[in-house]
Amino acid sequence: MADEKPQVSFIGLGAMGFGMATHLLKQGYTVTGFDVWGPTLDRFEAAGGRRAATPAEAVADKPFCVCMVATAQQAQSVLVEGPHAAVSTLPKGAALLLCSTVPCEYVQSLQQKLEGLGRGDILLVDCPVSGGAGRAADGTLSIMAGASAAALAKARPLLAEMADPSKLYIVQGGVGAGSNMKMVHQVLAACQILAASEAMGFADHLGVNLTKAHDAVLASDAWNWMFEHRVPRMLAQPQFQPVASAILIIMKDTSIITAEARRCSFPTLMTSTAEQVYFSGIVRGFGPDDDSSLIRLYTDGKSKTKPAQALGEEEEKKALDLVINLLKGILLCSAAEAIAFAQAVGLDLDQVFDLCINAAGGSKMLQKHGPEMIKAFRNGTAIKGWDSADSGGERLIDVAESLRDAVTEAQRLKMPLFLGNQASSLMTLALKAGTSSPAAGSVVKVWAAGLV
Amino acid sequence: MADEKPQVSFIGLGAMGFGMATHLLKQGYTVTGFDVWGPTLDRFEAAGGRRAATPAEAVADKPFCVCMVATAQQAQSVLVEGPHAAVSTLPKGAALLLCSTVPCEYVQSLQQKLEGLGRGDILLVDCPVSGGAGRAADGTLSIMAGASAAALAKARPLLAEMADPSKLYIVQGGVGAGSNMKMVHQVLAACQILAASEAMGFADHLGVNLTKAHDAVLASDAWNWMFEHRVPRMLAQPQFQPVASAILIIMKDTSIITAEARRCSFPTLMTSTAEQVYFSGIVRGFGPDDDSSLIRLYTDGKSKTKPAQALGEEEEKKALDLVINLLKGILLCSAAEAIAFAQAVGLDLDQVFDLCINAAGGSKMLQKHGPEMIKAFRNGTAIKGWDSADSGGERLIDVAESLRDAVTEAQRLKMPLFLGNQASSLMTLALKAGTSSPAAGSVVKVWAAGLV
Repeated sequence: MADEKPQVSFIGLGAMGFGMATHLLKQGYTVTGFDVWGPTLDRFEAAGGRRAATPAEAVADKPFCVCMVATAQQAQSVLVEGPHAAVSTLPKGAALLLCSTVPCEYVQSLQQKLEGLGRGDILLVDCPVSGGAGRAADGTLSIMAGASAAALAKARPLLAEMADPSKLYIVQGGVGAGSNMKMVHQVLAACQILAASEAMGFADHLGVNLTKAHDAVLASDAWNWMFEHRVPRMLAQPQFQPVASAILIIMKDTSIITAEARRCSFPTLMTSTAEQVYFSGIVRGFGPDDDSSLIRLYTDGKSKTKPAQALGEEEEKKALDLVINLLKGILLCSAAEAIAFAQAVGLDLDQVFDLCINAAGGSKMLQKHGPEMIKAFRNGTAIKGWDSADSGGERLIDVAESLRDAVTEAQRLKMPLFLGNQASSLMTLALKAGTSSPAAGSVVKVWAAGLV
Repeated sequence: MADEKPQVSFIGLGAMGFGMATHLLKQGYTVTGFDVWGPTLDRFEAAGGRRAATPAEAVADKPFCVCMVATAQQAQSVLVEGPHAAVSTLPKGAALLLCSTVPCEYVQSLQQKLEGLGRGDILLVDCPVSGGAGRAADGTLSIMAGASAAALAKARPLLAEMADPSKLYIVQGGVGAGSNMKMVHQVLAACQILAASEAMGFADHLGVNLTKAHDAVLASDAWNWMFEHRVPRMLAQPQFQPVASAILIIMKDTSIITAEARRCSFPTLMTSTAEQVYFSGIVRGFGPDDDSSLIRLYTDGKSKTKPAQALGEEEEKKALDLVINLLKGILLCSAAEAIAFAQAVGLDLDQVFDLCINAAGGSKMLQKHGPEMIKAFRNGTAIKGWDSADSGGERLIDVAESLRDAVTEAQRLKMPLFLGNQASSLMTLALKAGTSSPAAGSVVKVWAAGLV
């Protein structure tokens, strides 16, 4: 079977890359790996892979190269600038799949750089992924790929090996469009990873049993993928193990979002708020820790392993509602920011919605209110009277007032709710500009000046 | 001389109250003090005051009572609800000067409570102060007084003893209006106290000598009163001594602002951001420390006493500009938030401006751009084309782009700029909605939906 499948080189065997590369081995590919960290290569060999000492050695004579390093700087080094960069030995017409999360601006500059080096023959595919290490190893990632038609034609079978059949998205717009799609998805990820810590920190201050809070959120309209995946690690006190995704990783993606937003004058009001909190964690030395450990910024000295004080049944119900309503408000605003940003960078909003809802950025609030936001953009710039019937009757004022109760209670407890307060302020802005009883999704008008 | 001046009771002899009460002693008043903290009463007696064991004992037979406790809860206790509350013995027609910073809603409820108790004869004056302990002791405070004409007529000479002659403001609107004026002033205070730490934390990360940063800011358009008064304590490492004003104090005022803002659906986008950072300090146990110590939230593990690495002259100039531009952006947005909030609660904007510019909320940016914001509100709701010539040619786009450079650099340094990023996002919002080259003050339109 191995001789039927093309040879693949794989650069960057970290948590994601190792899973993806070993999945390809299991599918019968011959994979030659390179990583700067020797022990990883030992593991890769043990799993049936071949090892290379440099990127140039890895890619030589292979018609496909997958690059899954952590940053644009690393990609630049292993692909074009380092002493043994891949470009020197990549065969003519090879497909180069850049799966790292990088700025749109970077991957477009890489394309130009290759052309400048006389290697316009290399078929660059801008194809970041989402789904975490588990889905990487299963070959069921979400992949968003932008490239020339020729590059997509060549790379598609290999992309299909690594993606879930329903989650391979071809993004119109060529090289850069895949990265833009990933960036928009990461707006949701960046807000929702922090929201999990903010909501659970709030629950802790309220005296709610954290396992009950976890269960109540998952059964509510505040369900979101990140909460479901982060909170179990958060509850594994006191070490927040295993480190599935470090704070430094989401911080890096967050900075891509806010830097690109500045470049195109888009106001990432929610993501910028999250970014400052991530930096606060970095300043305190938490960068390499699992991102679920950010709950410490909200609870700190308090012991989260101590049994919660017993709340009465009614008190507990009220407290759980506050936690759920906090999350609903944050989720509504992060959905609005993501969709408005997608519109600003020219993505197909239906594709954005379909991708996000089925990836790590998924949430019930996006599912429920995303379509009305998208409809507003489709109908143009003069949507009056957002009918709340469009969203099953959920009105912005109701989401806003429920969130306001949560924010008021946190103020009484003297604890920060960075995202909750920002979402509350933004809903106040939207309601000032709005019609009498707008649908929840109409909050998107804050980000889209024309939509009044 | 003592027999010419009326007897005064003074409840609450903390940092502010002690200075105010001893100043009255020096002016020849007979002052009877009460405080829950015995050693303070000993000091007060040593300074020539009389002591009382309860509020009721203090106020008995005195035609004037000044109340300078820390919170509305404390005022409620000493004045009407506690076991020896003042209301039981206050003489008929006595003037009751409530100088504490409390919500408008509270002081209005106190008026109703007095009437409900059959003590409508008491002449309540809602007269919060600003200026710090030094000006309290000198009798040169800013005082903003709202009350009935009868109450103001009786209280005015005593207010004049405690205030600077040019800084006694009679605020139209009766009881509650003084507190609203103070609240609006505290929007500036809350943002600018934190801004001092944010700017100096940024300077530290940039490797600038902090004394040079201090001097450069004071000589620039980023001058503001809080910076001038906080930074010397901030530089008195490592103890941030003396504790002139605790984080808990500004946190309390900040919560009054955001709670009242929620009550009247006004979006305090800057103050809410500051509040979350204050709460972060509280969570870490810094509450009783001087508010200048908030620089720790930005620098933390880093030693601020170590000699800064030597920057070249040009590098240093660039770094100082970044710090100044960060502050200018924050100051512009906090000025806009204060003025828009003043408009929302119905204050006289010219009086707000005059008071703030001469009190602890003063800044060059308010001085420069406040008038154009006020003019916009005066001209109504359809100001188009804010001419940047109104503000000496300073355009919003220039302030925004300079701030953007600071925010980009902080992102490179992986440090939070809570206020700076928020101000940057808000300017982006304003510029999206705006004309081609609006004046800096036009950023106020973010808070005032009608002003487009």
